[in-house]
Amino acid sequence: MKEGIRIGLLGAGTVGSGTAKVLELNRKEIIERVGTPIEIRKVLVRNTRKVRPGFEQAVLTDRFEDILNDPEIDIVVELLGGVHPAKEYMLQALEAGKAVVTANKDVIAQYGHDLFAMAAAHHTEIFFEASVGGGIPIITPLKECLTANRITEIMGIVNGTTNYMLTKMSDCGSDYDSVLREAQQKGYAEADPTADVGGLDAARKAVILSSIAFNSRVKLEDVSVEGITKITPDDIAYAKNLGYVVKLLAVGKDTEDGINVRVHPVFLPKDHPLASVNGVYNAIFVHGNAIGDAMFYGQGAGSLPTASAVVADIMRAASDICHDRVTSTGCTCYEDKPVCPIEKTSSSYYVRLLVDDEPGVLAAIATAFGDAGVSLNSVIQTSRNVVDHAEIVAITHTIQHAKMQQAIHTIENLPVVDEVRNIIRVENGEDQ
Amino acid sequence: MKEGIRIGLLGAGTVGSGTAKVLELNRKEIIERVGTPIEIRKVLVRNTRKVRPGFEQAVLTDRFEDILNDPEIDIVVELLGGVHPAKEYMLQALEAGKAVVTANKDVIAQYGHDLFAMAAAHHTEIFFEASVGGGIPIITPLKECLTANRITEIMGIVNGTTNYMLTKMSDCGSDYDSVLREAQQKGYAEADPTADVGGLDAARKAVILSSIAFNSRVKLEDVSVEGITKITPDDIAYAKNLGYVVKLLAVGKDTEDGINVRVHPVFLPKDHPLASVNGVYNAIFVHGNAIGDAMFYGQGAGSLPTASAVVADIMRAASDICHDRVTSTGCTCYEDKPVCPIEKTSSSYYVRLLVDDEPGVLAAIATAFGDAGVSLNSVIQTSRNVVDHAEIVAITHTIQHAKMQQAIHTIENLPVVDEVRNIIRVENGEDQ
Repeated sequence: MKEGIRIGLLGAGTVGSGTAKVLELNRKEIIERVGTPIEIRKVLVRNTRKVRPGFEQAVLTDRFEDILNDPEIDIVVELLGGVHPAKEYMLQALEAGKAVVTANKDVIAQYGHDLFAMAAAHHTEIFFEASVGGGIPIITPLKECLTANRITEIMGIVNGTTNYMLTKMSDCGSDYDSVLREAQQKGYAEADPTADVGGLDAARKAVILSSIAFNSRVKLEDVSVEGITKITPDDIAYAKNLGYVVKLLAVGKDTEDGINVRVHPVFLPKDHPLASVNGVYNAIFVHGNAIGDAMFYGQGAGSLPTASAVVADIMRAASDICHDRVTSTGCTCYEDKPVCPIEKTSSSYYVRLLVDDEPGVLAAIATAFGDAGVSLNSVIQTSRNVVDHAEIVAITHTIQHAKMQQAIHTIENLPVVDEVRNIIRVENGEDQ
Repeated sequence: MKEGIRIGLLGAGTVGSGTAKVLELNRKEIIERVGTPIEIRKVLVRNTRKVRPGFEQAVLTDRFEDILNDPEIDIVVELLGGVHPAKEYMLQALEAGKAVVTANKDVIAQYGHDLFAMAAAHHTEIFFEASVGGGIPIITPLKECLTANRITEIMGIVNGTTNYMLTKMSDCGSDYDSVLREAQQKGYAEADPTADVGGLDAARKAVILSSIAFNSRVKLEDVSVEGITKITPDDIAYAKNLGYVVKLLAVGKDTEDGINVRVHPVFLPKDHPLASVNGVYNAIFVHGNAIGDAMFYGQGAGSLPTASAVVADIMRAASDICHDRVTSTGCTCYEDKPVCPIEKTSSSYYVRLLVDDEPGVLAAIATAFGDAGVSLNSVIQTSRNVVDHAEIVAITHTIQHAKMQQAIHTIENLPVVDEVRNIIRVENGEDQ
C-alpha cells in the first residue's frame, strides 16, 4: 500500500481554505479511515506573495505546471470555479493519470462527458460531489445508493442565495431589492447576482442532477430558466394565504414525452418536505420507482460544508490510489432520451391580475378563463394592495403550458384587465 | 469480468418479494450499471409447496445448505429478521467467501463486529444499508460521504410505527389505544407492538447509527430506552400550544463525558427539520464538524422502499465480485469511547402536573422548582382537561438529568401535587 497521498490544490479561496482546514482539523480521523496521511503539497494561486492563513508560503505557486509535472502529486483538487482554465487544467491532470476532485458545477454541467472520457482513458477518476448542494451528499447517493431505482423526478432547492432571499421576503415581508442588498452585505449574494437570481446557477445544477438521475445527457440549452426577479411581497403574501410557500426549484422530470428540465419559482404546498427548507439550506427531493420519495438536506454552500464534500472525495480518491483501483461509476449516460419542451409540460398555475374595480369583473375573468379552456381551482378578488383597481388571484387546475400561454394572451387583452402581474407554477404533485 | 451474478435469498416475505420485484422491474438499468445480469438462483423458505407470487417454484428450498453449498451463488441476501438463525447463516456464508447483504438490524446491532471480522478474514463483504431507515441512504453516506467529518450528533425518526401513531394523535387528537388499533389494522403495527412502541426497534437502529457515526462500538445495553406508551393527547395538545411537536427520537451524542445514546419521546420545535417528518416517513439528522447540519429523509419501511436499499447493496456487491475487489470500509470502530450515562446528560424538560385547584398553587410549584435548582422557562396553569383540579405545565431551562430526577422527587411529594402526569425532554439545541 502506498505511503502518504499528496494533493495539489487549484485555488485558495473560500472552499480551498475550508479544504485545508478540514484536512487539518480531522487529520487523525482521516488517517484512520484512509490508512495513510493526506498532505497538501502545492497550491495554485494568482499571487504567491499574498499571505494566506492556513497555507504555508512554501506550498504556493502561480504555475499550474508545477502541480501537473510533480510526480509526487496524486490528486488535483480544482476549486477555481468558472469554465476556463479549470476545464483545461482538469483534462491535463487526468491525462497525466492524476485523480481529480472538483466543486465546479460550470465545467461538470458543460464538459462532464469529456472529463469522464479522459479519466476512463487514463485509468483514473474524477469526483464532483461538491458541485451540487455544497456539503449535501447527493451525487454519490444518486450514483451508488439509489441505483436500484428508475428515477422519474428530481426537484431541488439548489441555490442558497435565492433561498435566503425568498425566506427573508417571506419572514419579514421585505421587497426584492432590499433583501438583495442585505444578502450582498452578508456575503450570501455576489456583487453581480445575475447567475443566482436569474436561475443560471440552479440550471447548471439541474443539468448535473438530471443527467445522473435519468442516465441521459442533458445540456444547459435544454433547460428552461426563470429566476426570482419578478417575485413580489404580494405574491408571497398570497402564497401564504393559500397554504403555499414560494421557492426557486430546479426540476427534472422523465416523462413519456421525454426529459423536461427547468428552473423557476413555484408555489409549493406548505406541508411538502421542501417547503421548510429555509435560509441558505439546500435540499434535493428525488422520486424513484422503488424508494418512492426521498430527500437530502443540508448547507448548500459555505467554506466548511463544501469542504466536507471535497475532502470526502479526496479520501475516496486517496483510498482508490492506495489500492491501485478505480471504483467510481464514471459516466452513466448510457441512454439518449428526447427533450420534452416546456410547452408540452403541464402544471397548475397561480395568476395575479390587476383589473378594473367594477361589478362583474370577477365573473368576466372567470368566464374568460373557462372559454380559454382553463379550469380554475380557486379565485380571490381583493382591493387590498391597490388604489382604484382590484387584484384577482386565481389558482388553475393542471393545464398544459402552451394552452396556459394562449389563455394568458386572451386574458391580458380583455378590456377589464390592466396587467398580468405574475404567473407562477404551482407544484401540486400532478404536474408533468 | 465475471458473467452473471447469482444470489440466494433467505426469506420471501415483504422485503424478499420486494427485492425480487425491483430486480425484475429495473432489470435493464441494473444490467447497464453492474455490467452483467443478477439472477435469483435459490430462495430459502419454510414451506416450499406454498405458491409465492414473483418466485418460480423451482428456486424455493427449505434447506440453507442448498444455498451455502451452491458454488454458483455469489451473494447471500439475508431477509429473515431476528437474531437466530440469521446470524449463523450470515457467518457461514461469509466464511464460504460469499458476499452478504442484509436488512437485519437485530444482528447488525448486536453482532455487526463479528460479521465484519468474518468478512475481512475471508476477503469478502457485508452490506446492511436497509437495516436502518428502510430505503433511505444513510449507512453509505455516513461511512463514505461524511467521512471527512467528526460527527458529534445523530438524531433520527427511525421507527415508522410510532411516527405514524404520533402523527395520527397529533392530526386527529385520538388517544394512544385507538391509534394503535388503527395502525395494526393498516399493517403499520404488529400484533405484538412492544418492540416498536417500547422503543427497542429504534434503540437497535440507534446502536448501528451511533457506532458508525462515532467510530466506537455502542452496545444495546448502553442505550437508555423509553417508548411512547405514556404519551397522551393532552401532552400533544400542550406541545402544539407551546410551538412543538412530539416525536420519538433515537439520539446519539458524542460529548466530553463520553457517548450518550438514548431513545425517548421529545418535544421538538416545530421549525426543526425533523418536525415535519410525518406518518411512516423516517429521517436521520446528522451534525458534523465540517458539514454542520444535514438530514436524510424517506420511507423507513415497506416492500419496495426497503428493497431499493437491498438491491443497491446487491449491485455494489455484484460490481465488486465482477472486479474481484473489496471496496466496503468494513468495521470503523477504531476508537473505544466511554459511555456517558443518561444521568449526566442535560436537557430542557416539559413537566405536566395534576395539582389542587386552589389559590397560590402556581407560585408554590414555581418556588419548589426554584428551590430544587430547576430554572423555568415558562409555566402554564389550566383547568381545561380536569375536574376539581388544575394542571400545571412547565418547560424548564437546560438541566442535568440527575438533578431533574431529584427535583421531580421533591415536587411529587408537595401536598398540592396530586400526580406527575408526564416528563418529556425538550430538544432545544442546547442539550448534551
